[in-house]
Amino acid sequence: MEKTSMFSIHEGKPIRCKAAVSRKPGEALVIEEIHVDPPQAYEVRIKIICTSLCHTDVSFSKIDSGPLARFPRILGHEAVGVIESIGEHVNGFQQGDVVLPVFHPHCEECRDCKSSKSNWCARFADDFLSNTRRYGMTSRFKDSFGEDIYHFLFVSSFSEYTVVDIAHLVKISPDIPVDKAALLSCGVSTGIGAAWKVANVEKGSTVAVFGLGAVGLAVGEGARLRGAGKIIGVDLNPEKFELGKKFGFTDFINSTLCGENKISEVIKEMTGGGVDYSFECVGLPSLLTEAFSSTRTGSGKTVVLGIDKHLTPVSLGSFDLLRGRHVCGSLFGGLKPKLDIPILVDHYLKKELNLDSFITHELKFEEINKAFDLLVQGKSLRCILWMNK
Amino acid sequence: MEKTSMFSIHEGKPIRCKAAVSRKPGEALVIEEIHVDPPQAYEVRIKIICTSLCHTDVSFSKIDSGPLARFPRILGHEAVGVIESIGEHVNGFQQGDVVLPVFHPHCEECRDCKSSKSNWCARFADDFLSNTRRYGMTSRFKDSFGEDIYHFLFVSSFSEYTVVDIAHLVKISPDIPVDKAALLSCGVSTGIGAAWKVANVEKGSTVAVFGLGAVGLAVGEGARLRGAGKIIGVDLNPEKFELGKKFGFTDFINSTLCGENKISEVIKEMTGGGVDYSFECVGLPSLLTEAFSSTRTGSGKTVVLGIDKHLTPVSLGSFDLLRGRHVCGSLFGGLKPKLDIPILVDHYLKKELNLDSFITHELKFEEINKAFDLLVQGKSLRCILWMNK
Repeated sequence: MEKTSMFSIHEGKPIRCKAAVSRKPGEALVIEEIHVDPPQAYEVRIKIICTSLCHTDVSFSKIDSGPLARFPRILGHEAVGVIESIGEHVNGFQQGDVVLPVFHPHCEECRDCKSSKSNWCARFADDFLSNTRRYGMTSRFKDSFGEDIYHFLFVSSFSEYTVVDIAHLVKISPDIPVDKAALLSCGVSTGIGAAWKVANVEKGSTVAVFGLGAVGLAVGEGARLRGAGKIIGVDLNPEKFELGKKFGFTDFINSTLCGENKISEVIKEMTGGGVDYSFECVGLPSLLTEAFSSTRTGSGKTVVLGIDKHLTPVSLGSFDLLRGRHVCGSLFGGLKPKLDIPILVDHYLKKELNLDSFITHELKFEEINKAFDLLVQGKSLRCILWMNK
Repeated sequence: MEKTSMFSIHEGKPIRCKAAVSRKPGEALVIEEIHVDPPQAYEVRIKIICTSLCHTDVSFSKIDSGPLARFPRILGHEAVGVIESIGEHVNGFQQGDVVLPVFHPHCEECRDCKSSKSNWCARFADDFLSNTRRYGMTSRFKDSFGEDIYHFLFVSSFSEYTVVDIAHLVKISPDIPVDKAALLSCGVSTGIGAAWKVANVEKGSTVAVFGLGAVGLAVGEGARLRGAGKIIGVDLNPEKFELGKKFGFTDFINSTLCGENKISEVIKEMTGGGVDYSFECVGLPSLLTEAFSSTRTGSGKTVVLGIDKHLTPVSLGSFDLLRGRHVCGSLFGGLKPKLDIPILVDHYLKKELNLDSFITHELKFEEINKAFDLLVQGKSLRCILWMNK
């Protein structure tokens, strides 16, 4: 990987560059020339090397009302970049560092960041409506008319340059190929973390994963690395099953072929009474009920990763719960970004963690709308978009 | 305590004795003379020394329809007795042993009994509709007309003699006063177990308990023994607050005085963001919502001990769950009776565990209907009924 020079000619000045702007809900992104302001205190400006996209980008490109409907906006939150310049009070980062921006904050100073029990940064995580982390609704992006462009999840990686708060930044080893590292910004880390940190899957245990997108497959990969004895994948698309084998899944259930049988009954039969751990990665209330019922009475644990877009409350049978079942949710798989992402990088470098199989497509950044189509059509797991190739 | 002789003159024959029989739903119990058959294989016949009663006895005395409405029936499931005689294949128990009958089974042989993760005996716990444990609907009780009387929760302690399966039996040290030991059969163990085993409350943590009956107070006692820093009791009866102080509660919320404020908001303010652990001990859906919301974002854990009598599903805000909260249920506080009750006895004998304050009343067995009144009116926590005093 080419390293940028230690001194940026743009330091302290706006940079003119290309970005893919989400102008109107539901419409294709527009490649435009924009201005990216220099970083403020506690911020860095990053030259993005590559970015990928996940379903959250798709969802937000379509939101047409409420406080989350912000246009024009620069989406994107899975990426790797190199620091071009740093603002005041930035410690631990310098120009030229290879970094991962992460939507989930980690200030390292609050009570929860210091606790081993939580990854919910008490200082920042509850505020996800600000545009920039510490500066409310101010923006570092302007379009060619001088109008502000909104940020997205404190990352906005669909741009050649972006500005990120250091609470959302992780320095990584330059040894890992950047396209593999980009996957660790969001979905893949979330899945592995859910298996490792939230469920704490142990050797020989049984696991069921509902929904084999990148997050669900990453749960399987996490469970495989923990030595789970049986990893059951549930999906309605049988093409996911071939992929699943690459991530340690041992059994598959095509939910469209269960007929009269409930998925949970099929799983109970396959496992002699239910799995130790189930993971709901879709966000369908009915599927969560099945995931919950598919765990073993007395000790089963269900991890909720998907969220229903209507925010329907989670409904659980009270007697099923009382019979010793657990349910928990988490964001970013319970991982603390600055602490845990380097550990995942290390597992990749030791050839233990399979990241390569998540990358099904690669395109030039300019072809970003094609990448959206591939994801929406279920044809890609992760499509890497290269900024300069 | 007086020890019975090693050889019972009744061995192998029915015993005639007194019992309090629940003849019709909602009506007072009737003291009658009954016959108690000898124990079958894997069973023992016990001479009850004392028994107490809990809300479950009251509830079942009122059920007037469905498979749980069984009359005539001998209720009672918190007690201590002495083994009078044993059936075939009974190992580990002998005549004269001081024993605690427990509604929750522990066969010690199935996969879950052998696992440290579960107290849900895979062999027996799912079957709670049988009358005797291994013999379906057969009964060991007959009334003076020779008609069968139903058992209750495999214990039926409202009788001078009862027959109990060894899966429901715990041998205890004769050093503990029997009235204190009786409390460990059900409610008090459930509360302590919920704090120790299910929540795993740790030193310095914060706890909120919703509902200060015997179970809720026992949760406080369990949290106190674990060194919790703040233990908040929530109840609508302020008389419970004085009692609560004896079990380590440090703060109280009178839920009738919260006005416009939600209980969860009051708790969040008292704890700088929410408690580490909350316990719902009433079985009210609205209270569970408050218990859930009162825990700390990112790591809060809610333990469900109460169950709504209409079995209303548990409803949880999906985004609240996703923000790193946990919910779990358990029966008998996640305790394995044969393994964990002797540990609780030991804590009592070391003067660490406060059992004495749970006993607010003592009556003769014949006064059992008065004990029901005291419990229903909220005047007693636990009333000990002595069989021979």
